[in-house]
Amino acid sequence: MGNRPLDKLNNVLNESVLVRLKGSREFRGILQGYDVHMNLTLEDAEELVDGVVTRQIGTVVVRGDNVVYVSP
Amino acid sequence: MGNRPLDKLNNVLNESVLVRLKGSREFRGILQGYDVHMNLTLEDAEELVDGVVTRQIGTVVVRGDNVVYVSP
Amino acid sequence: MGNRPLDKLNNVLNESVLVRLKGSREFRGILQGYDVHMNLTLEDAEELVDGVVTRQIGTVVVRGDNVVYVSP
Amino acid sequence: MGNRPLDKLNNVLNESVLVRLKGSREFRGILQGYDVHMNLTLEDAEELVDGVVTRQIGTVVVRGDNVVYVSP
Amino acid sequence: MGNRPLDKLNNVLNESVLVRLKGSREFRGILQGYDVHMNLTLEDAEELVDGVVTRQIGTVVVRGDNVVYVSP
Amino acid sequence: MGNRPLDKLNNVLNESVLVRLKGSREFRGILQGYDVHMNLTLEDAEELVDGVVTRQIGTVVVRGDNVVYVSP
Amino acid sequence: MGNRPLDKLNNVLNESVLVRLKGSREFRGILQGYDVHMNLTLEDAEELVDGVVTRQIGTVVVRGDNVVYVSP
Repeated sequence: MGNRPLDKLNNVLNESVLVRLKGSREFRGILQGYDVHMNLTLEDAEELVDGVVTRQIGTVVVRGDNVVYVSP
Repeated sequence: MGNRPLDKLNNVLNESVLVRLKGSREFRGILQGYDVHMNLTLEDAEELVDGVVTRQIGTVVVRGDNVVYVSP
Repeated sequence: MGNRPLDKLNNVLNESVLVRLKGSREFRGILQGYDVHMNLTLEDAEELVDGVVTRQIGTVVVRGDNVVYVSP
Repeated sequence: MGNRPLDKLNNVLNESVLVRLKGSREFRGILQGYDVHMNLTLEDAEELVDGVVTRQIGTVVVRGDNVVYVSP
Repeated sequence: MGNRPLDKLNNVLNESVLVRLKGSREFRGILQGYDVHMNLTLEDAEELVDGVVTRQIGTVVVRGDNVVYVSP
Repeated sequence: MGNRPLDKLNNVLNESVLVRLKGSREFRGILQGYDVHMNLTLEDAEELVDGVVTRQIGTVVVRGDNVVYVSP
Repeated sequence: MGNRPLDKLNNVLNESVLVRLKGSREFRGILQGYDVHMNLTLEDAEELVDGVVTRQIGTVVVRGDNVVYVSP
């Protein structure tokens, strides 16, 4: 079913997403990959703390257990 | 049995739900999908902090381990 | 054995239960379903914070890892 | 081996136990059942906070991940 | 290999051990049993908080996820 | 798929990475190995707290559940 | 592959390691054994809090989920 959470991530591969992590950190970047743990690969990512861009981080592999939500 | 927790989520697909997360965050949106981890896909979602709408977020994939409850 | 924890939940299906969650939140409602993770479906539920009813919430699916105890 | 932790719980079925939970909560009651997650069923239970009885709770199903220890 | 962590616990069965738990609690007692989760059975145990004996607790079944370390 | 999170780690073996841990600790070092839990082996690593190098640590094996993200 | 995290632990058996735990506790000792959970057996161990030796603890079995990193 195309609306299952991991299918939805598959649908937005190569698109820009906002990734909210536990704590106050967010990433905005291009979703390049994911797996069943919701580990994520982002490209051209920037890190935001409290909504302010704090770092241009480029490529980043995020461990899934830190993820609160992903929004395309 | 139609009253098992995941069956109940299945019964309210395409309906509006309130999703309470750990911490003070909630989402209200249309439940489009779920899986056994209680990962959720919401559409037309808005984010609430302490009951106040803070963001129109559209589509969002929530990682299940953040969920406290889902209420249709 | 009818006294194993999940059997006990089975015995009180359709009865009123008190569900204590981590933090200060409780639900009182009719237990309509459960699964091996202790995910719960309640109907006619009310939410209590510090023992005071704060919300009539109707149907609610609670994710099991938030549960401290269930008392019929 | 009768001294493995779950065997020990089996040995004290129908006896009074003290159950220490994470945080400052304890239960004293008759151990009626348990499972491999250390989910517990207690009967005639009372809840103690900081060593003081705060509630006569009767039957209670405790989710195992809250348990620190069980002492007969 | 006799030095693997669970083998080491097996080697000290029926001996006195110090069990450090998350938070400031420790137990000293005779290790009577254990399992793969590091659930432990202690006999003739005493509870220490900040290094001070606070309770003679006799037999106690400790849930493994609370354990920081066990020292014979 | 070469963009899956663990594939991405494989692609940067023997390269310098920044590893952000839960809390305020980071490591910078050469990624020598990883596994499915995102346990990591770093060589020539230095530890940073709040962005300041606090220790030259050489070889270090990081347990995966502490990892927030890895960035090449 | 000899650089995978558990292989690396295998390579330093019988050598002195520094084990950083969650919180401010560290152990220095001889790594005698480990398993897939990163449970560890140390011999001739000393406990450090904030970098200061607080206890000569001899043999210690550390439960893996407390480990942040191991450094030979």
